[in-house]
Amino acid sequence: MRIAVDAMGGDHAPQAIVEGILLAAQEYSDVEFILYGDGEKIKPYLGDHYNTDKIKIVHTSEKIESDDEPVRAIRSKKQASMVLAARAVKEGKADALFSAGNTGALLAAGLLIIGRIKGIDRPGLMPVLPVIGKDEQFVFMDVGANADSKAENMHQFGILGSYYSEFVLGKKNPKVALLNNGSEPRKGSELSKKAYDLLAADEGINFIGNTEARELFSGLADVIVTDGFTGNAVLKTIEGTAMSVMELMKASILDGGVKAKLGGLMLKDSLRTVKDTMDYSKFGGAVLFGLRAPVVKTHGSADKVAVYHTIKQIRQILTSNVIDDLVVHFETLNEKQAIE
Amino acid sequence: MRIAVDAMGGDHAPQAIVEGILLAAQEYSDVEFILYGDGEKIKPYLGDHYNTDKIKIVHTSEKIESDDEPVRAIRSKKQASMVLAARAVKEGKADALFSAGNTGALLAAGLLIIGRIKGIDRPGLMPVLPVIGKDEQFVFMDVGANADSKAENMHQFGILGSYYSEFVLGKKNPKVALLNNGSEPRKGSELSKKAYDLLAADEGINFIGNTEARELFSGLADVIVTDGFTGNAVLKTIEGTAMSVMELMKASILDGGVKAKLGGLMLKDSLRTVKDTMDYSKFGGAVLFGLRAPVVKTHGSADKVAVYHTIKQIRQILTSNVIDDLVVHFETLNEKQAIE
Repeated sequence: MRIAVDAMGGDHAPQAIVEGILLAAQEYSDVEFILYGDGEKIKPYLGDHYNTDKIKIVHTSEKIESDDEPVRAIRSKKQASMVLAARAVKEGKADALFSAGNTGALLAAGLLIIGRIKGIDRPGLMPVLPVIGKDEQFVFMDVGANADSKAENMHQFGILGSYYSEFVLGKKNPKVALLNNGSEPRKGSELSKKAYDLLAADEGINFIGNTEARELFSGLADVIVTDGFTGNAVLKTIEGTAMSVMELMKASILDGGVKAKLGGLMLKDSLRTVKDTMDYSKFGGAVLFGLRAPVVKTHGSADKVAVYHTIKQIRQILTSNVIDDLVVHFETLNEKQAIE
Repeated sequence: MRIAVDAMGGDHAPQAIVEGILLAAQEYSDVEFILYGDGEKIKPYLGDHYNTDKIKIVHTSEKIESDDEPVRAIRSKKQASMVLAARAVKEGKADALFSAGNTGALLAAGLLIIGRIKGIDRPGLMPVLPVIGKDEQFVFMDVGANADSKAENMHQFGILGSYYSEFVLGKKNPKVALLNNGSEPRKGSELSKKAYDLLAADEGINFIGNTEARELFSGLADVIVTDGFTGNAVLKTIEGTAMSVMELMKASILDGGVKAKLGGLMLKDSLRTVKDTMDYSKFGGAVLFGLRAPVVKTHGSADKVAVYHTIKQIRQILTSNVIDDLVVHFETLNEKQAIE
């Protein structure tokens, strides 16, 4: 399998990207990488691995900046590392696209260059998040590929998430829930009530009803569906709250005198465990799911370990053939609807 | 000032409610309480304070349960403690309504019995939340009085929050921000773009633009405006995430052997500081704001201290005369619009 890598995207590019790719290349001998970016800047981090069978470089000096307007950037910067990497996937030269760059631009590149699975109206952005207290994960979508989602889109997020949970994460008959403002069936906004009806009517998925954001981490569902605006706010609230609590903890240890400082030292491992559990970058990045190939975005601040985990995830997605299965699912659906 | 108290609402009613009222009555000699509920059940917690000048009981054996359908309950249980308390406010026998009961029913009682300020289309539910690292608070609305908000409602939330921040919390020229999926001006859903335009065009408020949920606790704004669906999800995500992090901390201390347990003991005060900082019940309850009188809801699980803090908050609201100011604001606005 071949992964097209936008080597210039992210706060620590190209160093973190290239070092992460090297870590992955050492472990996975069945993966070939094509790195798109500035050859001179990439070279120092590759050493002996520069332009081998497994790691190829395609040089380009153009790149998309984090504050570029997404669609305009994709259209005007035709030689940007991200655009070239997306085109390689489109043309069959690579099987998947990885980037830590401008999220909006990556969404635009995915939609405009790689294209959607036939029958999918809008792809969604889907991170893999930890269930607290269990060694399990759940997927949550859409966290912001769309500023406005329709109920039909949310129904498709349920199908997409279900496939991912089953074929990539190995859950049997994954439970799908709808994020709502109450757990009872008739709760919610006009939008969430419509999405509820569509999800409930689909016998192909194991829909268990509404869930509230308070229960997100409880493991109650394997797939949690929401519209792109709410999902974006919820994911950023998780990050903001977890960060605030950890900062408060740190401040209160530093302000707490000798006893607290000593206690803090003794609890160093425990505090690290908490941080590690909440750090979902170990499950990989957020998948822009619903496209004809895996497009995966990791955090702009990703380090080499996060990059490595994201490559591991992309390899799992490719090995699972989940996208081919989705293509068949939506083709069959289209045929059925055509007959009816 | 006189506060009508739904003595039967909440998980620990009437005990926590009555004990909290007693704490408040000891401190605030200018407040009279009318307790609505089961006299026999309330009496044991009042002791000598049963039916004094300051604390009166209005007996009723009917009450609204936490799983009652809100509007139906308000209409059919005409003798319920919450309904009687709301009616007392409506009839001018009390100045404010306090409850820890069924949130939906309290919203319905507020809307249907007490009524909106003229010119307000939809009231919002507004908690007071802590700025992390500073001894300051911000208000956030709507967290769920409405399942669907219009842009015009969100504009009014900005005005309402601004008045609260200035007159109750004492902020000069409070900064108002819109929760959005990016901080740039043209970001967002159709709804949030419209709300942005209305907030930006209103010269009466100090609108500073968009903010992302990651920055909620940063103190960037004194008032954060959102629609009722997103606000509900965000508030519940804050609670779920903070709870998860604290639980993880506890589990990792218990699993961490002797050293971690000792460290945990030494850090007990620091851990309590963190919990206290995040516990926003010390700022009172969530105000159902936009009604003709203060209606304040505290958490169903509130203890006597939370009840006490909520009474303190209601007293501040009444002392500030903020609702009279809002009535004048919207009357003037109506007159202006009539002339134009």
